Amino acid sequence: MATAIVEANLTGFDSHGMIRLPQYAPLLRAGRINARPNVHVTQRSPATALVDGDNGMGHLVMRFAAQTAVELARESGIGWVGARRSNHAGAAGIYVGIPLAAGMIGIYGANSSANHMAPWGGAEALLGTNPLAVAIPAGREAPVVLDMATSVTSFGVIRKHALEGTPLPEGWAVDPEDGTSVTDARKAAEALLLPIGGYKGSGLALIIGLLAGVLNGAAFGRDVKEFSAEAAGEGNTGQFIIALDVARFQPLEQFKAEMDRQIGVLRNSKALPGVEAVRIPGEDRVRRRAERMKNGIPIPPALVQQLDAVANEAGVALLSSR
Amino acid sequence: MATAIVEANLTGFDSHGMIRLPQYAPLLRAGRINARPNVHVTQRSPATALVDGDNGMGHLVMRFAAQTAVELARESGIGWVGARRSNHAGAAGIYVGIPLAAGMIGIYGANSSANHMAPWGGAEALLGTNPLAVAIPAGREAPVVLDMATSVTSFGVIRKHALEGTPLPEGWAVDPEDGTSVTDARKAAEALLLPIGGYKGSGLALIIGLLAGVLNGAAFGRDVKEFSAEAAGEGNTGQFIIALDVARFQPLEQFKAEMDRQIGVLRNSKALPGVEAVRIPGEDRVRRRAERMKNGIPIPPALVQQLDAVANEAGVALLSSR
Repeated sequence: MATAIVEANLTGFDSHGMIRLPQYAPLLRAGRINARPNVHVTQRSPATALVDGDNGMGHLVMRFAAQTAVELARESGIGWVGARRSNHAGAAGIYVGIPLAAGMIGIYGANSSANHMAPWGGAEALLGTNPLAVAIPAGREAPVVLDMATSVTSFGVIRKHALEGTPLPEGWAVDPEDGTSVTDARKAAEALLLPIGGYKGSGLALIIGLLAGVLNGAAFGRDVKEFSAEAAGEGNTGQFIIALDVARFQPLEQFKAEMDRQIGVLRNSKALPGVEAVRIPGEDRVRRRAERMKNGIPIPPALVQQLDAVANEAGVALLSSR
Repeated sequence: MATAIVEANLTGFDSHGMIRLPQYAPLLRAGRINARPNVHVTQRSPATALVDGDNGMGHLVMRFAAQTAVELARESGIGWVGARRSNHAGAAGIYVGIPLAAGMIGIYGANSSANHMAPWGGAEALLGTNPLAVAIPAGREAPVVLDMATSVTSFGVIRKHALEGTPLPEGWAVDPEDGTSVTDARKAAEALLLPIGGYKGSGLALIIGLLAGVLNGAAFGRDVKEFSAEAAGEGNTGQFIIALDVARFQPLEQFKAEMDRQIGVLRNSKALPGVEAVRIPGEDRVRRRAERMKNGIPIPPALVQQLDAVANEAGVALLSSR
């Protein structure tokens, strides 16, 4: 779990890194999430597998699932691995990095462990902001890594606006009572997040949810139990990961060289006025990782305090004492 | 080809049906597209294949690729089939219907045969409005079928606005010179279409393009030759299709029953004020197909004239004479 969480911070996904520990720790301590799960394959075919996460943290489940997908892809060209009885797994980009390290393409989808969107036209939060991540190898260039939610923005960003007292732009969230835009961040707790591209993003969230949830026998729709809720039992979060072996289509080195060439064309193409340069998804991740490996991960004082409290309850050395 | 084209019209995708014949016919007659291609597999692993389309119409190539994907999935649980040296394939929804008919999930992506979008922040049209389609089986309910481009709107819709003299909404297209919104449809020919969700949709279009184009050794970015351009040689369009066997995760009938239940929950959920009902992608397709199988496909008089001209040049009976 530490590997996955630190990797999220190293690559700049602070919202899915150490900031989550104060949220995870009580669930683990209360036994609502299984701290020592027996993560295992329950069904297997030459190129697919279904993983039972034994109600462990998603970080453990999806690391195992991604490694299984790579093994299947080595044998069969592709591996699609679904997971059930999983939990929140942090940053999607971490798991597509596992096929990537094996010279493969990685694709990940998850049914979120909380519902913040409605089906298109609906007033009930029955869909997650279900994320999709894809990683494609390159050579000298940074690998192309897309890691996105299917909503215009996240609840994390809205909370930040609420703290800072800044209004939300139109088109981020709507009031389920009357469908009007919610621009006061402090009133956004009950709001529905809007999908990207209207019915299109809503359709994407639905499809990802069906593939990650229903196909794996995991929770979906009204059966999703909010991750942080007190009373609820097992979350049964569902995720899937695909590893696709590039070498079954063309030699890996040839593919990487062509990726480098195409990335170069895009990055050196003309930018719109006011835009410094065209950026390719994944560039910043590599740049930030190098910088943070050198200079460390900045942790705001408030988070150090929270992490110290977690350490204190767990009876381990405080972060601030290191 | 006729099967695929009529299927597009039957399911209501008129923009990808018979209306395209006047565009296809001259390319086939001029030999720029191979009317009698030898579509074949050039590389095969237990769960992947690469198809060479021999510069045939995409309808033939992708029907063959989808059938190959289903065969692989029967053996290995999943089949991912890429195609190169293909061409425009019409409506994406047709091809995901092939795994669907076999009780499987279908996923399709294509690198468009023309570039109408820029990479995010860019001023050059180097990306297609690359479509994604997914089909998921259900029982009594209509299968969930999503078929969407990664742009907010299509050039077809813009042309319709130009014909009718109605302005374009903000957020559909921008002027590549200054990045400002283009709302005069008649000035949209040189405009860049905007992706759904800003950098997210742009990232999706890029990823789909890399998986359908670069991975298969097909055209991408600056190498894409506009489908309808006069001088250009072979288009080398790339597409991919995945068939995923539901039964490797749970019994198909059990999955279909759960899909029915979840679709019911979504459809019967509370709608926003002013919305008649929550609709699930794929519903309309089934409804329209039943209606058109009964009453026929409406063809506007102007299209009948165009199709008569195609028939005349081909020396076959005119549509209007039937």
